[in-house]
Amino acid sequence: MMPEQVLRQIQSDIWDVAGTGIGILETSHRGAYWDRRIAECVASVRAAGRVPEDFEILFVQGGATMHFALLPMNFCPPGTSADYLSTGVWARKTLHEARAAHEAGFAGEARCAFDGASCGYDHVPSAEECAFNAEARFLHYCSNNTVYGTLFAEPPAAPSGVRIICDSGSEMFSRPIPWDRVDCVYACVQKNLGVAGTVLVIMRKSFLETARRDLPPILSYLEHAREGSRLNTPATFGIHVTGLMCDWLVSQGGSAEMWKRAQERSGAVYAAIDSSDGFYRGLAKQCCCSHLNPVFFLPTDDLHKTFLGEATLAGLVGLAGHRETGGVRASMYNPFPVAGAHRLAEFMRSFARANAPLGAR
Amino acid sequence: MMPEQVLRQIQSDIWDVAGTGIGILETSHRGAYWDRRIAECVASVRAAGRVPEDFEILFVQGGATMHFALLPMNFCPPGTSADYLSTGVWARKTLHEARAAHEAGFAGEARCAFDGASCGYDHVPSAEECAFNAEARFLHYCSNNTVYGTLFAEPPAAPSGVRIICDSGSEMFSRPIPWDRVDCVYACVQKNLGVAGTVLVIMRKSFLETARRDLPPILSYLEHAREGSRLNTPATFGIHVTGLMCDWLVSQGGSAEMWKRAQERSGAVYAAIDSSDGFYRGLAKQCCCSHLNPVFFLPTDDLHKTFLGEATLAGLVGLAGHRETGGVRASMYNPFPVAGAHRLAEFMRSFARANAPLGAR
Repeated sequence: MMPEQVLRQIQSDIWDVAGTGIGILETSHRGAYWDRRIAECVASVRAAGRVPEDFEILFVQGGATMHFALLPMNFCPPGTSADYLSTGVWARKTLHEARAAHEAGFAGEARCAFDGASCGYDHVPSAEECAFNAEARFLHYCSNNTVYGTLFAEPPAAPSGVRIICDSGSEMFSRPIPWDRVDCVYACVQKNLGVAGTVLVIMRKSFLETARRDLPPILSYLEHAREGSRLNTPATFGIHVTGLMCDWLVSQGGSAEMWKRAQERSGAVYAAIDSSDGFYRGLAKQCCCSHLNPVFFLPTDDLHKTFLGEATLAGLVGLAGHRETGGVRASMYNPFPVAGAHRLAEFMRSFARANAPLGAR
Repeated sequence: MMPEQVLRQIQSDIWDVAGTGIGILETSHRGAYWDRRIAECVASVRAAGRVPEDFEILFVQGGATMHFALLPMNFCPPGTSADYLSTGVWARKTLHEARAAHEAGFAGEARCAFDGASCGYDHVPSAEECAFNAEARFLHYCSNNTVYGTLFAEPPAAPSGVRIICDSGSEMFSRPIPWDRVDCVYACVQKNLGVAGTVLVIMRKSFLETARRDLPPILSYLEHAREGSRLNTPATFGIHVTGLMCDWLVSQGGSAEMWKRAQERSGAVYAAIDSSDGFYRGLAKQCCCSHLNPVFFLPTDDLHKTFLGEATLAGLVGLAGHRETGGVRASMYNPFPVAGAHRLAEFMRSFARANAPLGAR
C-alpha cells in the first residue's frame, strides 16, 4: 500500500506535473524538467536513507532479479568467486541466478557460505556458522527474508577486505542502514518505496570502481553511473514515485521513525504469539525475527483455514503464508499503519481464546 | 503525449482499479486481479497489432537497450554471427551493444551488413547494398530511424532461412506489421504505446525455441515466456498502461488507421517541403521518408534559429533536430492530432514566404 497523500500527488502529476502543462508520463527524459527532477529524486533518496556522499545512487531497471545476475557479472569476473548466504527463498534465487551466470561463462563462481535449508531457514547465521572465503570478491546477503520472516540484526561479519552486498529489497529504509559496514545496498522498491520495476542500487564509489570494464554498456553499473542513471531512457515514472515516497518518508521522521513503527507493529504480533501459551508458534528464532514479516503457525491445518477465513471477515486480508512455509504471514511495510498491527494482535488473542484446547485457555 | 481519455483512466486507476478498492500501484502481481489483467493486456496487444497466435507476446523490462544486448546473447551464441543494418543512431547503438556482448564473450559476432554512415544515413538500403551473410543467426534492423527520419517500407530481403528481428521502438503499431516476414518485433513503448521502461517483445514461437538454454533465467526469453511475463515481479503499472493504450488504438481503428493518420500528418509536412522551391530540404531520400519523424533543413543556421524561435511562439514546440543532424525534426507519434501537422505545415509555408530569398518567393 502507499500513503494516500502520495497517491493523490501522483494522480495530479499524471495530468500536469510541476506546472509544466504536461503529465509525468509524457515528459521527455532529456528535457529541462527531468534534468531537475532526477537530481531531486536522487537527493530525496539520499535524505531518506541518510546515504553518505561516497555512495553512488543509481536508478536502474529490470527488478531485483536482473541484478542477481548483473552484480556477479560486474564484480565477480570468471576466475574469481563470491560468497552467498542462502537464508530464504529470495537469497536462494539470488544464488541460483549467480550460479547460472557462472555456468554460462559470464561470471566467476558463486559459493554458498551458509545454506539455511538445513535449519528450515529459521534463523540467519552467526559468523561461526558461515564458511567464508577470504578471497571472495564480495559477500552477498539478503537482510530481511520475507517468506521465512527472518532478519539480519546487522551485516554479517565477512573476512576483512571482502566487500558486502546487501539485498534490501523488502526493507529498504525501514530501518537505518550502517553505511560503514556495507559496500552496496540494492532494492526493488515496490514494497516500501515505489512501484514494481524500479530498482535502487546504492554503491560505495570505491567498490563501483572495481567493476569489470568490458561489459556491454547496458549491463555495466559503471556506465549507468557515468550517465547519471540516464544511459538509456530511464523508467521516469517509477523514479518520480520513489522520489515522492522518499519525501513522504522524510516528512514522517525518516528511517529511524520507520524502524520504531516497524518494531511496534511486529512487536504487537510477536507479543500475541508469545502470550498464546504455545497456540501460535513463530517460525523465526528469537534472535532473528523480521520487523516487517512475522510468520507463525497454528496447531493444525484446519485452524489455519479457520483463522484466515475469520481474519478476512474481520477485514484482515493477505495473511496466508507463502506456499513454501504455509501458516500465516503478516507483511507490514513502511506505509502500513501501526493501528492495523494492533488490530491483528487483538484478533489473534481473541481467536486463540476461542480456539485453543480447553486446557490451554 | 497520451490521449486524454487514457490519462483520465490512469488517474482513476491510481486510486481504485477495476473496483478492487485498491490502486493499480498497490495491486499484487500474484493476486487474482493481475492474473486477469495481464491476460487482458496481452489480448489488447494482440488485437492492436493483429498479432498471429504463433507469436509469443512478452512484457519485459530494461528499455530497448537492454534487449540490444540480450537478443544476441539469446540467439547468437559464441561461435555464430548475426547481421546488423546500421541505418541511424539507434541502429548504431544496437550494433555497439551487440559487439560489446561479443567482446565480453557473451555472444557471437555482430557483423555490419550495411553502414549508413557513408551516405549520411539518408536512406535505408536495398538488398543490393547489403552484404548479407547467409549463415547469420538473424538479421537485425530498425524499421523507423527517428534521428534521420528514414523508414523501411518493408522488411529487408534477408537470405532465405535467416531470421529477421525488427526494432520497432519508435513506431510499433503505427502501421500494420507484415508478420509473415519477421520473426521478432520489439519496442520500448514510450513513444506510441505507454510509459518508459516497458518493453514489448513479440516473437515467433518457432524462433523463440531456438534460443540458448543455459542463460541465467532472468536473461532468457524462453524463461520469461515460460512464466507468462511473470518470471520476476513484472513492472505492473507499465503493462497496465500499454493495455490501455492498445485498447485506445483499437477503438480508433487500429494500426491501419494509425498508418493513415501518420501518412496524412507526415504528408502535410513533406508537401510543405516539396512546395518550398528548395527553401526546405528534407534529409531522407524520397524512397525512405519516415511517416513519424520528418527531418528537414533551412538554408542557413540563422534561419534554423529563427524558425525554431518563431515556431515556439506559435505554440509549435520540440522541433529542434537531434544534435547529430541539426535542422528541424517534427516527431508526430500515434496520439498526435492530424490538425497539429496541418498547423505546422501552414506555419512552414508562411515562414518560407517571409524568409525565402527574394528570387525564390
